[in-house]
Amino acid sequence: MSNLELKVLGQDAEAAACCSPMVHEPLDGEAAVQLAKMFKALADPVRLRLLSLIASHEGGEACVCDLTGPFDVSQPTISHHLKVLREAGLVGCERRGTWVYYWVLPAALARLSSLLQAPAGASAGAAR
Amino acid sequence: MSNLELKVLGQDAEAAACCSPMVHEPLDGEAAVQLAKMFKALADPVRLRLLSLIASHEGGEACVCDLTGPFDVSQPTISHHLKVLREAGLVGCERRGTWVYYWVLPAALARLSSLLQAPAGASAGAAR
Repeated sequence: MSNLELKVLGQDAEAAACCSPMVHEPLDGEAAVQLAKMFKALADPVRLRLLSLIASHEGGEACVCDLTGPFDVSQPTISHHLKVLREAGLVGCERRGTWVYYWVLPAALARLSSLLQAPAGASAGAAR
Repeated sequence: MSNLELKVLGQDAEAAACCSPMVHEPLDGEAAVQLAKMFKALADPVRLRLLSLIASHEGGEACVCDLTGPFDVSQPTISHHLKVLREAGLVGCERRGTWVYYWVLPAALARLSSLLQAPAGASAGAAR
């Protein structure tokens, strides 16, 4: 994926067009199944913190050796959570020598972020 | 909540400042627990479609009588899913006469959307 493509997948108009907010039109069943899987991967505090640690790590990627220290859970548990994030398409990884390195997949985050964009103005009901 | 407040909670700079993207700094444990509960409410296809139906409904709110037709599940199941969305702070509701009306809470959607904002540019790892 080129830098340009990654930029397009950010918070600009093209991203909004590719992943219409759910406030604009009802989600279809197939999209809902796929998106629910991604949200399920985010529905755990340890996985959310892992994703955040990876995303905010210097250089945009983190060695698995940097990801166990901050948590009060075992290495196999961390590995399981990383696998769930990977299978949901939220992170990528690569082995280099002894360690596996993880990075977030920006297009996946951008898709979920766009989907959840709130209405720009107040709706009648929301103002209650 | 005033219209002005709702506007501020939208997609503008103030919203971004109030809910820093997880790519900027690691989430703390307490925030992760709270956010994971909200994502858990989204981790079901029927709930995602319900939320989308409510959010995209004319006038920004939907009668519960409009929310059962599109689904192949029972009324009690729909009621359960609506309760999960309500308890997660994603929708509000009010009884008027025979029916209960639901609307999305824009601040909650905006918070999750801001949290998931992808990196603006390509990171070394993400470009792989």
